[in-house]
Amino acid sequence: MQNILDHIDSGLNASLERLFAFLRIPSISAQPAHAHDCRLAATWVRDLLAEMGFTARLSETSGLPGVIATHHAAGPEAPHVLFYGHYDVQPADPLELWHADPFTPQLVEGPRGKRIVARGAVDDKGQVISFLEACRAHLAATGGLPVRLTVLLEGEEENGSPSLVELLQNERAALAADFVLVADTNMWNFTTPAITTSLRGLAAIEVTLHGPRRDLHSGLFGGIALNPAQALTTILGQMKDAAGRITIPGFYDGVAPVPPALARSWERLGFDAAGFLGDVGLHHPAGEATQGSLAQLWARPTAEINGIFSGYQGEGSKTIIPAEATAKLTFRLVAGQDPHKILDGFEQFVRDRLPADAAATFRRGGAAPGFAVSPDAPFLRAAQTALEAEFGTPAALIGCGASIPVVEAFKTHLGLDTLLVGFGLDDDCIHSPNEKFELACFHRGMRAQARLLSAFAGQEVQ
Amino acid sequence: MQNILDHIDSGLNASLERLFAFLRIPSISAQPAHAHDCRLAATWVRDLLAEMGFTARLSETSGLPGVIATHHAAGPEAPHVLFYGHYDVQPADPLELWHADPFTPQLVEGPRGKRIVARGAVDDKGQVISFLEACRAHLAATGGLPVRLTVLLEGEEENGSPSLVELLQNERAALAADFVLVADTNMWNFTTPAITTSLRGLAAIEVTLHGPRRDLHSGLFGGIALNPAQALTTILGQMKDAAGRITIPGFYDGVAPVPPALARSWERLGFDAAGFLGDVGLHHPAGEATQGSLAQLWARPTAEINGIFSGYQGEGSKTIIPAEATAKLTFRLVAGQDPHKILDGFEQFVRDRLPADAAATFRRGGAAPGFAVSPDAPFLRAAQTALEAEFGTPAALIGCGASIPVVEAFKTHLGLDTLLVGFGLDDDCIHSPNEKFELACFHRGMRAQARLLSAFAGQEVQ
Repeated sequence: MQNILDHIDSGLNASLERLFAFLRIPSISAQPAHAHDCRLAATWVRDLLAEMGFTARLSETSGLPGVIATHHAAGPEAPHVLFYGHYDVQPADPLELWHADPFTPQLVEGPRGKRIVARGAVDDKGQVISFLEACRAHLAATGGLPVRLTVLLEGEEENGSPSLVELLQNERAALAADFVLVADTNMWNFTTPAITTSLRGLAAIEVTLHGPRRDLHSGLFGGIALNPAQALTTILGQMKDAAGRITIPGFYDGVAPVPPALARSWERLGFDAAGFLGDVGLHHPAGEATQGSLAQLWARPTAEINGIFSGYQGEGSKTIIPAEATAKLTFRLVAGQDPHKILDGFEQFVRDRLPADAAATFRRGGAAPGFAVSPDAPFLRAAQTALEAEFGTPAALIGCGASIPVVEAFKTHLGLDTLLVGFGLDDDCIHSPNEKFELACFHRGMRAQARLLSAFAGQEVQ
Repeated sequence: MQNILDHIDSGLNASLERLFAFLRIPSISAQPAHAHDCRLAATWVRDLLAEMGFTARLSETSGLPGVIATHHAAGPEAPHVLFYGHYDVQPADPLELWHADPFTPQLVEGPRGKRIVARGAVDDKGQVISFLEACRAHLAATGGLPVRLTVLLEGEEENGSPSLVELLQNERAALAADFVLVADTNMWNFTTPAITTSLRGLAAIEVTLHGPRRDLHSGLFGGIALNPAQALTTILGQMKDAAGRITIPGFYDGVAPVPPALARSWERLGFDAAGFLGDVGLHHPAGEATQGSLAQLWARPTAEINGIFSGYQGEGSKTIIPAEATAKLTFRLVAGQDPHKILDGFEQFVRDRLPADAAATFRRGGAAPGFAVSPDAPFLRAAQTALEAEFGTPAALIGCGASIPVVEAFKTHLGLDTLLVGFGLDDDCIHSPNEKFELACFHRGMRAQARLLSAFAGQEVQ
């Protein structure tokens, strides 16, 4: 292991040169004018993989191609890892806020030492190159890789991944693996690595309550006529109890309590709820009173009114009883909840409370389940060992309250669980001007990925 | 009395000629192109009053002039009536829907006999002329009027009465009287006259709940961050109990039950709530369960959400926690309620229920009290006697769930109560094409007004 890590340390400048070459390609997937640059980035990284000894090719889609590369020399007994990253980047504008050209990468002195500044520095070219340089070090030091490895690089992640499902379905056989390793997330902080072990799913629905045939004069009809805006607020106002618990029957079916070990590890993270909320002008955790702040964010499902509208919205007042009232809701779901049952339950909740003369119609939106890695998954244990070896401190096992669509896609289309390990920091300005990747994070990321590869194979990581 | 009524009957054609002359003037107050016609109507009716023996003049305002005429020969012991009407009319468009020119009045055969068809036939020129012809008959038969009479005709009623307050303030002394008689309302039906004895007032307010500083990502913040749309629905959802009673503390302070005699008379009206609601697609009276349908419409205050809005309203879903949520409300108020106290109570109701991290701001709109004629008011008793004498059936004592701004203005600026008696029908198409006034209603309206004048003075009405 030490020999491999020495290769990484001594090769840092060469690794940086390769990253900079990748960063110079403005592969902005959202802008058709950069379609050629995106292809250039795809072929550049394909050639890099081929030069390293991978069997590498482009996989065409109706959009931008994927890059697929395999190195299966470790043999059928070795674990099979599917590494996922993306070669495209966000648009760079507003350009005037950058201190230098976004596609002319710079090493700039910062409070934590040197940092790499460019569009894509961390999201996701820096993280992809970290991983590939770790592979390079293994290959240079040992002549092989400890795992069977398939690399999948997407070119449309920053544009909503419109062709990802097509790519996964086209390449289902080529992408067979034991699990997916995604390097597109952050560390807990500069000194503590993190593994994201849960994501929340989503179920979306719109409800409209219909009352009178048309808007009514509130003087001539007020008192005797049903007001659907009042009916909707009355129903939605019952959706949470005083303790913040969602009252839709069956809503918590399948929701497991946070495993005690995970709960203890979250306590040790010392999450600053007051600071987190203070940044957006709030002060009090507003979720279930019985749950800690991180559980509210990561482990508990939510019901949110994203929008509500009815009647008159202009200046002053208009004395009407509106004909209808609409609310848009999304539910963030955790592993164990069935999104369709959640929407069924919401519809029933509304119907059970409809006053006479109100009718309800519903329009369902996307529905995706939550995701959680089992605390006993071997790849998780391996990752914990490898990260603690590199950083000298246990990895934070964190959740994410939002979805990561590729994780859901891997589960749905390839049947694979995903290990989310990354070396970004929350202040890396991804999607913003002056995106950066701390040089130390790039360097330790390479070292950590090298240890991860060994750990997956059950090899020594010290 | 019979002599006076004979004058009306024998003079019907002459009365119609005068009405038709008035109707031929297109005095559309909303259209500046008709300003000259409005002045023409004002001078026409001023001259009519002068010719009848009134002291008549125009009273200039910053808009169209009022017409003020007095006939005080009855002497200081006689009751003093202020009659109010308006000489302006609604615009006539869409012209293509009229069967004849709106300003060329016609007598047309209809299911209830002949009808007068023209813009302003009933609203309000027909009703004004009905009253003035009743005065003419008194003058012709007796040489005088039984009451001191001041006539006030406004020229901007169909345009929101922008100069009415100015007119009332300018002419405060000239308009002193015991009460106001307004002829701009309807009968209960073709055979049953009506007196409108109550109007509801109005108090308007907008409430905004403020939560996070900006819209938040519902995945990254959902669960821990206050959602002001949820908070607003929770608060407004508590504003009515299961029996439809408004739960704002003090809301019903000063609200008297419907006087038993009035309640009994409403029962006798045989109001068809199912038909009334059915016309707008509803079926169930939605107000206070303990109140009858007419009480819900006329005698009980309401709280209505006229509009509500927050967050995303476009297609599909947007996974945000909105930064704020707003609702617009109006309260319809009955006599005895203080509009400002009602708004104070609503603000307190919201503040008492604000969750941590929510702030509320309020914008108040108009505030006008409700109005009710005392069942013992002498002018009301007199009107009941006179109407029953003419129609052979007691007048329906009805309410109106909406406001009539001039009634509020008379109370506020002159300190006068108003008697609302009119001879229109609900199907007269006021403000619509082919506005009509049943000839029988015009004729009996004149006779009824003649009896009213006698009744006010305590004279025999048979």
